[in-house]
Amino acid sequence: MGFSFGKNFKLTIFGESHGKIVGSIVEGCPIGLQLKEEDIQEELNKRKPGGELTSKREEKDIVNILSGVTNGRTNGGPILMLIFNKDVDSTWYEKHRYIPRPGHADYPAFIKYGGYNDSRGGGFFSGRLTVGFVMAGAIAKKILTKKGINILTHVIQINGIKAKENISDEEIIKLASKSPVYCADEDASKQMVAEIKRLMEEGDSTGGIIECRVLGLPVGIGEPIFDSVESILAHGLFSIPGVKAIEFGSGFQLCSMRGSQSNDEFYIKEGKILTKTNHSGGILGGLTNGMPLVFRVGIKPTSSISKRQRSVNLITMKETELEIIGRHDPCIVIRAVPVVECVTAFCITDLMMQANMIPRIMSE
Amino acid sequence: MGFSFGKNFKLTIFGESHGKIVGSIVEGCPIGLQLKEEDIQEELNKRKPGGELTSKREEKDIVNILSGVTNGRTNGGPILMLIFNKDVDSTWYEKHRYIPRPGHADYPAFIKYGGYNDSRGGGFFSGRLTVGFVMAGAIAKKILTKKGINILTHVIQINGIKAKENISDEEIIKLASKSPVYCADEDASKQMVAEIKRLMEEGDSTGGIIECRVLGLPVGIGEPIFDSVESILAHGLFSIPGVKAIEFGSGFQLCSMRGSQSNDEFYIKEGKILTKTNHSGGILGGLTNGMPLVFRVGIKPTSSISKRQRSVNLITMKETELEIIGRHDPCIVIRAVPVVECVTAFCITDLMMQANMIPRIMSE
Amino acid sequence: MGFSFGKNFKLTIFGESHGKIVGSIVEGCPIGLQLKEEDIQEELNKRKPGGELTSKREEKDIVNILSGVTNGRTNGGPILMLIFNKDVDSTWYEKHRYIPRPGHADYPAFIKYGGYNDSRGGGFFSGRLTVGFVMAGAIAKKILTKKGINILTHVIQINGIKAKENISDEEIIKLASKSPVYCADEDASKQMVAEIKRLMEEGDSTGGIIECRVLGLPVGIGEPIFDSVESILAHGLFSIPGVKAIEFGSGFQLCSMRGSQSNDEFYIKEGKILTKTNHSGGILGGLTNGMPLVFRVGIKPTSSISKRQRSVNLITMKETELEIIGRHDPCIVIRAVPVVECVTAFCITDLMMQANMIPRIMSE
Amino acid sequence: MGFSFGKNFKLTIFGESHGKIVGSIVEGCPIGLQLKEEDIQEELNKRKPGGELTSKREEKDIVNILSGVTNGRTNGGPILMLIFNKDVDSTWYEKHRYIPRPGHADYPAFIKYGGYNDSRGGGFFSGRLTVGFVMAGAIAKKILTKKGINILTHVIQINGIKAKENISDEEIIKLASKSPVYCADEDASKQMVAEIKRLMEEGDSTGGIIECRVLGLPVGIGEPIFDSVESILAHGLFSIPGVKAIEFGSGFQLCSMRGSQSNDEFYIKEGKILTKTNHSGGILGGLTNGMPLVFRVGIKPTSSISKRQRSVNLITMKETELEIIGRHDPCIVIRAVPVVECVTAFCITDLMMQANMIPRIMSE
Repeated sequence: MGFSFGKNFKLTIFGESHGKIVGSIVEGCPIGLQLKEEDIQEELNKRKPGGELTSKREEKDIVNILSGVTNGRTNGGPILMLIFNKDVDSTWYEKHRYIPRPGHADYPAFIKYGGYNDSRGGGFFSGRLTVGFVMAGAIAKKILTKKGINILTHVIQINGIKAKENISDEEIIKLASKSPVYCADEDASKQMVAEIKRLMEEGDSTGGIIECRVLGLPVGIGEPIFDSVESILAHGLFSIPGVKAIEFGSGFQLCSMRGSQSNDEFYIKEGKILTKTNHSGGILGGLTNGMPLVFRVGIKPTSSISKRQRSVNLITMKETELEIIGRHDPCIVIRAVPVVECVTAFCITDLMMQANMIPRIMSE
Repeated sequence: MGFSFGKNFKLTIFGESHGKIVGSIVEGCPIGLQLKEEDIQEELNKRKPGGELTSKREEKDIVNILSGVTNGRTNGGPILMLIFNKDVDSTWYEKHRYIPRPGHADYPAFIKYGGYNDSRGGGFFSGRLTVGFVMAGAIAKKILTKKGINILTHVIQINGIKAKENISDEEIIKLASKSPVYCADEDASKQMVAEIKRLMEEGDSTGGIIECRVLGLPVGIGEPIFDSVESILAHGLFSIPGVKAIEFGSGFQLCSMRGSQSNDEFYIKEGKILTKTNHSGGILGGLTNGMPLVFRVGIKPTSSISKRQRSVNLITMKETELEIIGRHDPCIVIRAVPVVECVTAFCITDLMMQANMIPRIMSE
Repeated sequence: MGFSFGKNFKLTIFGESHGKIVGSIVEGCPIGLQLKEEDIQEELNKRKPGGELTSKREEKDIVNILSGVTNGRTNGGPILMLIFNKDVDSTWYEKHRYIPRPGHADYPAFIKYGGYNDSRGGGFFSGRLTVGFVMAGAIAKKILTKKGINILTHVIQINGIKAKENISDEEIIKLASKSPVYCADEDASKQMVAEIKRLMEEGDSTGGIIECRVLGLPVGIGEPIFDSVESILAHGLFSIPGVKAIEFGSGFQLCSMRGSQSNDEFYIKEGKILTKTNHSGGILGGLTNGMPLVFRVGIKPTSSISKRQRSVNLITMKETELEIIGRHDPCIVIRAVPVVECVTAFCITDLMMQANMIPRIMSE
Repeated sequence: MGFSFGKNFKLTIFGESHGKIVGSIVEGCPIGLQLKEEDIQEELNKRKPGGELTSKREEKDIVNILSGVTNGRTNGGPILMLIFNKDVDSTWYEKHRYIPRPGHADYPAFIKYGGYNDSRGGGFFSGRLTVGFVMAGAIAKKILTKKGINILTHVIQINGIKAKENISDEEIIKLASKSPVYCADEDASKQMVAEIKRLMEEGDSTGGIIECRVLGLPVGIGEPIFDSVESILAHGLFSIPGVKAIEFGSGFQLCSMRGSQSNDEFYIKEGKILTKTNHSGGILGGLTNGMPLVFRVGIKPTSSISKRQRSVNLITMKETELEIIGRHDPCIVIRAVPVVECVTAFCITDLMMQANMIPRIMSE
């Protein structure tokens, strides 16, 4: 029952990696919003497999909007968006049904579902279901753009390779989308690409860190106690397979600071209240304070590697070896970038709706 | 509207730091469970202010269970638990109503609530509302104990001082509760105490890191996609004021690892499936895998410091200085320990209820 | 887990008839609304026991607002409202613990809760818990009044005695509150009073019908499919103990009509769209159409009667007789009038919030 | 945002009458349940248009299960079920876009959605969306059948024609499905058929009453206060277009009874606790008591009639006449029968899940 998310803006994900479809349904979208399949497709294309550094599964990922839009505008009803799976090959999975892949949901899912879950390609635990996040996020991004809110997402680390510190917003805007690994530091980007290629050859994988900056947010987004900006974003972002760590603002570095350093003092500039530093990442007491919202998510190495691994057989309860043959990403971080951005857009939009900051009718 | 949390086990927090009461209401508790005010009080006493290293506000924090319990057992109805605030002094806050304290919710809350929020002591943004988390967590801990689940919580860092690595479960059980800072490394504990005292004298504060290990969990807790164990725990834990970072298992370190290192390989020991390493922190695909659930939360320095700080006046829109006079904790990390443990217990219990792992009637 | 109701405006009820307290907690109230205990008390006094025609239990029902209000205005947090039970006498109930009263929840509750529910006075199945509905409704009525919405509630039948047809809104406003049975037909009112007194003497009880008219509603309240005005009102109203039937507009009479009669044709009057008839009760397709919202609820006779009845002993599983000694209402309909009105106000307010028709800040 | 219903068993409806699709998504279904498209189709065929007494719209209503089922069994994920609309003709609607049909949602929907709703065929306010209820109900019925629960649904009144009183369960089982109007009284059935044909010729319509009896229910279904059996069933049933009245047990007749008559006295038969009468309709204090659950829903005449009616033009704000040309049911009651049954099955299943009466895994 964890397939839905959001309060005023609601998203339900469905489908299986090797089933007929994957998709999502979005409720609570502002009415009268112009929405074309192209709007969704554009975002989907960013996470599509098939590039030089990504999985070889060939999915065009063509979205179909089946409800909720009339004459090119949202009509107030649920927006159903589907992708029909095309390039499905379940041979390997059917052969290895009872040997859980290390690092995957296979083992606990088998126990939880009494063996009735769809295990082919991970079923609904597959990263493939993140297309549903992207579909909803594409709509959210349209809404946020109209409110002057912009999300910058870039990769700051892959394996041990780190982008330089103090990358400016302008550099991200200019350079991140040009980098095959969404890294706004050109030198680091090249090293990252090389590293990924090397790991690919070795049949290994790695992880990395994505940073997100949300610009243009009004003051007061977030709900007290349980629906703080951090709570909601973390809830959404940890739904992305592979995310294992999150920090806001100066994050874990705050644990080695003094209050007199970490407190962001207020000042006034051109009639607006700002803070001199932004250790809080734009969030005070769970509410946005008008400064850029900044956070980083840590993503583990892709679990599917072609190197031989030790596992067990769930039926015979004997140890065994496993060699995964499939079409896997050596570094899921790259394809997670649009997903992180879309989840962020979705969470922010929902919180803004809760704070009555988005009009019910949004027809321009 | 963010005052409630949980699906099958539900918690609603209410009250204000300087209002009449603080408390919580818990719905969905198993029926027939023995529950006395002492059970709740014991947990509350752990986070009570008044110690040598904590705030001087004198609150006995005596809990009153007003509904949901009949003849010493839960009766299936909502459990209302209240604490009447006693030692309230709002003089300073009323004087500084329009000068937001750096690092606090004051500024965005003023904007969000049009000035109608209770700003005394932070109102419902105060850490004082975490008594409500503790009340609910005390009940959750009773339930988990009956299921053989045990939570170990300890401090591994305060300011720059770190506990040694590889602290064993046994050391935590034996030593953490004896340390004034819940640190299971005796040397580090002494240094942490000294550091906090020094900061106290200087009118400054600091942050730190709490680690949690949950032992005895069954396989398969967690719901797919949005209600992964990580999502729910992060949602709950980021509700605790001051928490700015969370990592599960090897967390951010995973970002510099290869899949062949980070994947926890399965093996069989005494008929049980285990993993040799536990980089995943006991969670695969959002579900528990039977290994210890491990995570760390990073807590920022207490925002209220007595050092003079720069701020602004929200009415005159002029910059000004602020000297906070109050009774504040130099290091909120210590008092956050029982809160982190209780939020964890609550989240785990709710997820176990969702997976039908807790009986409706639990009368022994 | 059925103790909460409402989406954007949320109500949680708690307490037991013979426990320490009864009360409710309201979330989502507009911010800055003036709210005094007197506002709540005034509504509570309408359903208070103690009159000539009602139960002799002496409860002053003094409300305490314990959170959510600062300086006389709502502060955006949950509003906790309590009444301490005073006149509790559980002797009879403890003696008859295992003999379920006909017409009451006793028997299924005993089974459902494995005997751990509070059975004294019906526990949380008692009509006493409707004080919580009234508390929340009192707030809702304040909000609706500011929006020019007015609810007229009157009794149109008690036992076989019916009020005349075609009572005007003016008659209800003028006469209903003057009648001891809230009946706007003075002759019928007198007969109803006499009937109730006779039943009281005979140790018997009866039921009746309450009609509600909501005036001044804007067009478009209600959400499509599952949250139609009828669905939400029925959900709320069937939560009132004793309600067994509901009909909107011409209700069951519509089943003997033709479409050409039942369809309310549109016309224009002073620039406003109205309908000539109002068979739909002001609701089309689940949405308000600007005409008066009209519905009737049928309430069964009070189950607790002093006449000897047949029952069974749940432990010995033998048939037995039961004589209820207590302080019961001969006709719960009278005391249900303010409850029906308050539930209606609550439901309408929640639906208006969902349609963004109530501002977040409502400070005049 | 009213497109979803249910707590542990959840249903979301989507689509538009003249859009690409209609359908529903069901979450929380027991795992491992055998489910084929035929199971759903069988129920859908019962409400399909095209018969002698129903709309001439030719929809085969072929269901596609697109997710949630693997190898013929539910896999624990959301079950997405779609029907592609085939026989769509929107000509009339597009021509009369601004002239609301009396008795329909057209007028309030136009106001609520600022004109952006899909008005063709009523959009998502169309009775066509009840296919989604039927799909979910078909699954619920499979689950209930396994638990020995059986729902009998029959028509007891159409226009003024009433079925005889005291129809037995056996008569309903034997005769209702043979009657073109689901009436178990053969004489009344014939009269009803004749009446509908006459109205059809006259271009008029009528309403009627459906009765439901649920047999085999365990004691204790229903949640206290707001989620009583009556509350949940009424919520669900009033979601069906045209339903304007509901009564449980003896319903409105209870309002003219005495407590000594209406109370159902307990007795013991073959070791089971039963009641001699069933005025309560099998529900005490909102909980099932093991007796048959009995209720009746009143359905208004179909709003779409071909007789000329008065209406207004929403743009010119002038009065006008309207002649509806389309393919409408003269008596929606017939086609509502399977819908009422399916909604009932859905509500009961959800409440049983909330009471932990349905296993998580249900693979036989």
